[in-house]
Amino acid sequence: MTTSSSAIAVDAGGSSTRAVVVDRDGNCGPVTRTGPGNPSSDGHRAATNIAAACASAVAASPHSPHLVVATVAGILSRGFPELPGALARRGLPTRLTLESDMLSAYFSATAAPEGAVMIMGTGAVAGRISGGRLASVHDGLGWLLGDSGSGFWIGRRVARAVAADLDGRGPSTSLTVRVLEKLVGVPGRHSVRSTELASLLTWSQSGSPLELAQLAILADEESEVDGVAHDICAQAAAHALTTLRSVPGADEGPIVLGGGVLDPQGAVGRAVHARLGGRARSVADGVAGAALMAVRELGGSADEATLARITAALGR
Amino acid sequence: MTTSSSAIAVDAGGSSTRAVVVDRDGNCGPVTRTGPGNPSSDGHRAATNIAAACASAVAASPHSPHLVVATVAGILSRGFPELPGALARRGLPTRLTLESDMLSAYFSATAAPEGAVMIMGTGAVAGRISGGRLASVHDGLGWLLGDSGSGFWIGRRVARAVAADLDGRGPSTSLTVRVLEKLVGVPGRHSVRSTELASLLTWSQSGSPLELAQLAILADEESEVDGVAHDICAQAAAHALTTLRSVPGADEGPIVLGGGVLDPQGAVGRAVHARLGGRARSVADGVAGAALMAVRELGGSADEATLARITAALGR
Repeated sequence: MTTSSSAIAVDAGGSSTRAVVVDRDGNCGPVTRTGPGNPSSDGHRAATNIAAACASAVAASPHSPHLVVATVAGILSRGFPELPGALARRGLPTRLTLESDMLSAYFSATAAPEGAVMIMGTGAVAGRISGGRLASVHDGLGWLLGDSGSGFWIGRRVARAVAADLDGRGPSTSLTVRVLEKLVGVPGRHSVRSTELASLLTWSQSGSPLELAQLAILADEESEVDGVAHDICAQAAAHALTTLRSVPGADEGPIVLGGGVLDPQGAVGRAVHARLGGRARSVADGVAGAALMAVRELGGSADEATLARITAALGR
Repeated sequence: MTTSSSAIAVDAGGSSTRAVVVDRDGNCGPVTRTGPGNPSSDGHRAATNIAAACASAVAASPHSPHLVVATVAGILSRGFPELPGALARRGLPTRLTLESDMLSAYFSATAAPEGAVMIMGTGAVAGRISGGRLASVHDGLGWLLGDSGSGFWIGRRVARAVAADLDGRGPSTSLTVRVLEKLVGVPGRHSVRSTELASLLTWSQSGSPLELAQLAILADEESEVDGVAHDICAQAAAHALTTLRSVPGADEGPIVLGGGVLDPQGAVGRAVHARLGGRARSVADGVAGAALMAVRELGGSADEATLARITAALGR
């Protein structure tokens, strides 16, 4: 065990949580992973998963960290009252800094203190980074009022396009056969509807509206062969660019893009990257950025050299 | 009490239920009214309200009806198992014919056996009438998959336009001040949102998504002075016309339009009526049509003369 100052950096997302111990020079231990760490669906489970990831990271490190820096989705609207107790029960440091996962996504791609970030997964949110802090937030308003262009937005458009096709109100689309393949076995009996439309209705009403986000991948996969899918993806990309343009100062500095919808291999991400040119940088997750933020908290130099060291260590 | 054959005709909707006793010549007693009769929200309450309206109608009539003809919103997807028992408990006839409220809306305006009907209130649905029966149904798929152009559709667009305005992502619109007037007193505290946007978020998350339909009237009221409101209403009218065009044979015969969104005094209804010309007929409710359907069930002549007699009686 060394005496160097160190911290646990955590990036907690809706599908998994990643943690790493980092010292003030950016030297990292191994990354540990657990399940979902987003408190908006289940705060206790998220806190338990984060504490477990932290405990594994500490066990795998020669350091004795005295600080936790956790970046969490949705933290701005809800807070995270369950987390301090979950850390204490594991004997982990209770000195805790909670930040938005928008910051860790941003700092996974750049150490620049001024810039913009956008994350489009099931939801869609953009932010201004200024002085190394999150200065403003745009969209991220949830599926009913906002999340324009997000995975939910795309999936809802897919479902509505398929419903209109089956109902004779909209153009024929290859999305219909792709969606119906997913619904095999879903009961569809209705006095005045086709079996297919009744299955889609039953499925759409069986869970949370957010389940529609599952259909977003079909728009991506069909976008090069089907006009309806192409238009949905093009409109999602336009929404992403509109939201980015609303970020003050987004016309200079790096623009960091994260989340599955903005994956540069996908139809929407490809269009957005093409429009933004060399200023756009893509990130897969935020654990490197959380580590860079932890270096800053420890009083180290949170610069590009440190980020490069962190990124190299995490890639090993 | 006469011995003439008679029936109770009922038009049961989401906000009120109307009943009337009618004989086979179309002679009507007074119309009685109770509360909501749409079983999709609360089947027991709807059945109780319908039975109460029927009992009042019988008490106010010299006839002893032996049959109930009830037209009900949403009946095609759900059925109405609670109704026969509720009628029996009131000593009412248990010979019951249940039909869609699309039929009673249609026959409130015309006795023609071939035509089309569209109802746009909170939801949006159109149908083909053929041989006096409902031959096909279009849209009516609920707020998540369909109801294109409906009150929910318009209200959701209003809420999203106001959110985008407050968030700097969309154009300035007079809808914003109108919506904020409705939200006075709704708490709005949020770390990175304006108080106004936080109030809108809190309000939108406090009830069913369908509550957004309350905002539809604001788009109508602002449509002549605000471009955003005008575009929302124009797109709703375009959706109504697209759905109507999908109805087989809708290019001939009367087209009956019902529901608040299609009110010919409102922005959407005005545009739809203008486009359809003289073939469009407007109805306020379906009680006259339910009475005409009851005449047919009783073996009477369900023709224009009988409908005129019913309409005149109900107008008194």
